Amino acid sequence: MGLIVQKFGGSSVATPDRIRNVARIITDTYQKGSQVVVILSAMGDTTDDLIALANEINPNGSRREMDMLLSTGEQVSVALCAMCIEGMGFPVVSLTGWQAGMETNSSYGSARIKRLDKDRIERELDQRRIVLLAGFQGVNSFGDITTLGRGGSDTSAVAVAATLHADLCQIYTDVDGVYTADPRMVKEARKLDEITFDEMLELASLGAQVLHNRSVEMAKRYNVHLEVLSSFSGKPGTKVKEVVKNVEKMMVSGVALDPNVARIAVLGLDDCPGVAFRIFSQLAKAGVNVDIILQSTSRDNKKDISFTVEKVDRDKSVQVLEENRERIGFSSLEVDDSVAKVSIVGAGMQHNPGVAARMFEALSNSQVNIHMISTSEIKVSVLIDACNAERAVQAIHDKFFG
Amino acid sequence: MGLIVQKFGGSSVATPDRIRNVARIITDTYQKGSQVVVILSAMGDTTDDLIALANEINPNGSRREMDMLLSTGEQVSVALCAMCIEGMGFPVVSLTGWQAGMETNSSYGSARIKRLDKDRIERELDQRRIVLLAGFQGVNSFGDITTLGRGGSDTSAVAVAATLHADLCQIYTDVDGVYTADPRMVKEARKLDEITFDEMLELASLGAQVLHNRSVEMAKRYNVHLEVLSSFSGKPGTKVKEVVKNVEKMMVSGVALDPNVARIAVLGLDDCPGVAFRIFSQLAKAGVNVDIILQSTSRDNKKDISFTVEKVDRDKSVQVLEENRERIGFSSLEVDDSVAKVSIVGAGMQHNPGVAARMFEALSNSQVNIHMISTSEIKVSVLIDACNAERAVQAIHDKFFG
Repeated sequence: MGLIVQKFGGSSVATPDRIRNVARIITDTYQKGSQVVVILSAMGDTTDDLIALANEINPNGSRREMDMLLSTGEQVSVALCAMCIEGMGFPVVSLTGWQAGMETNSSYGSARIKRLDKDRIERELDQRRIVLLAGFQGVNSFGDITTLGRGGSDTSAVAVAATLHADLCQIYTDVDGVYTADPRMVKEARKLDEITFDEMLELASLGAQVLHNRSVEMAKRYNVHLEVLSSFSGKPGTKVKEVVKNVEKMMVSGVALDPNVARIAVLGLDDCPGVAFRIFSQLAKAGVNVDIILQSTSRDNKKDISFTVEKVDRDKSVQVLEENRERIGFSSLEVDDSVAKVSIVGAGMQHNPGVAARMFEALSNSQVNIHMISTSEIKVSVLIDACNAERAVQAIHDKFFG
Repeated sequence: MGLIVQKFGGSSVATPDRIRNVARIITDTYQKGSQVVVILSAMGDTTDDLIALANEINPNGSRREMDMLLSTGEQVSVALCAMCIEGMGFPVVSLTGWQAGMETNSSYGSARIKRLDKDRIERELDQRRIVLLAGFQGVNSFGDITTLGRGGSDTSAVAVAATLHADLCQIYTDVDGVYTADPRMVKEARKLDEITFDEMLELASLGAQVLHNRSVEMAKRYNVHLEVLSSFSGKPGTKVKEVVKNVEKMMVSGVALDPNVARIAVLGLDDCPGVAFRIFSQLAKAGVNVDIILQSTSRDNKKDISFTVEKVDRDKSVQVLEENRERIGFSSLEVDDSVAKVSIVGAGMQHNPGVAARMFEALSNSQVNIHMISTSEIKVSVLIDACNAERAVQAIHDKFFG
């Protein structure tokens, strides 16, 4: 009924058998009377294999040629899946990014969608065809192939859903929805039926790798109804919307763990204006994303500033700071890799005081020491020792969902 | 040094090492001051692997989707080779068929080139870039990807050379030219420095798989100077031209063997008008290409007609004849698989009587019996028992080149 956009990730199309499974989901939707536009990723490890081949030839090849190379992965997926659907007796057509009118800027490797020229897709839909689109790719104003970078296929799907005013955009993956915590870690974790865009954004940035942030931001902006579900289980997934029915009056939607964190402390700074600016402007220039920032109170006219970065940015951060030691003026650096960030996210906490306190209570009862705290309207994050991370997630989950 | 078009086949780009080798040949040419446009095939067995994958999913997938699938192979080749050339410090760009303006009709899987819109290629050449084109592929008027079928990359290369008025079109392959006979069979076989288009056409259709016929026909029509050479040896190859310097007054350029032949004899036909028409019109309708035709002299108002087809068409031919037994009116069929066609080709034989007689003398001296004879202006073919084939080729080669 209406128009449904479906997106299937690489693991969902990794083998001929899985492609057959995906074809069944697509044709089932079509048979119920919907128009169906499908976005596919490359099969399984295809993209990684192509990158390895390129690196063998030239580890510093241009991004333009890399996009030319990588875009073939999705093209293979849509052609094979189209053949499978043909074999099942349904009308179908596959389209590359340029055929589908997916116009982007020229930032090869991380292109942004400028516009979707929907003529071709609509013409195919008018002929009652199932339309399969190669995700992750587009074409720039020079007629060159671009790729959208990480999470690009999710973004393709949301852009198509927004442009075509789809009634629903289903993101099929290998998990069957968004959980109150990572079910591999917390046995009692529950699947959420619904979640808000803002909660999803916080969860995505907190390390719950279900949907890429860019796609959620776009879905929020154009109010595209998203559903995250599994291509393997056949069960309903989690719906992502602007406002959700909060039947249970849940204050917290989920507990997220991000182990990919390093803490850097800059010690012995002069307590005078401009110190923080000098530190963080240098880091920004180097392209380092800083997450939590903590400043100590001044003592003897000296203070410390601590912050967290992704582990991959740790060495670069230290290098930038050491190079600017004179200008910043600090006595020493402390670097700590063995930390983790645990967060609770919930649109409900905006109107419910005491949520943070309940989280701290759970940690205290479990003897978990807190190094740093950071809060937003719908999120509370704490930095703790990595060795305590799983125990902390379990304790917080018990507190809010037990 | 003008404009040179180079084409490299699948075996020349089968591995990263071989791609590096090809990149060296290309950049050597560029460094000598030429503009260079390169056509690449898919790496090694890529096309066969993709076909196998498609067959696993649906052995009857549409040709449109098959072309969508297969065209990725050449796209991977040009992207990787471009990265390699980038690494060597030369300006380069890779283009797909649609980016290069290769417009074809809509015969998916065996599309014909209608027109090459040379704007993009010329723009890149004007910027002194080496241009790498994905061979074997084009785009039709619907904006869908087509492939040119067997020998398509050779044809792409010749079409590009013709449109751009290239000074030379070099076809790099795994043999280093055209020989007077297959060097794996005849030890004394010599590489030819030059050969005419017509000779090359006869040799290609006679089973000397060096260049595909379509590409030679096109080269002849547009007078594109071709050179066949090896990407491995670095030696000069064989030039294919309209007129060649025949310093040695050679009557014969080469001896070719085609083992892929079946002979079908239709026995006991009425000796009346229309019999041959009924046989061959039915075969044509079924898409069977008939090669040599022999009609016996009439005896008792009955005659026999024998003809040869490719082995792959043998069963279809027999089926067509049996289905039309009444209409054609014959008593029985004889089918013989164990035959081979041996031919001599030479533009020089037009003006030299007695060439065929010398060939028959060689066969006679070697005790090889001849079943059928067929001649053209520059060719003599005989059908013999397959078991005699190699001995016959050697004997004929000795006679003309010994």
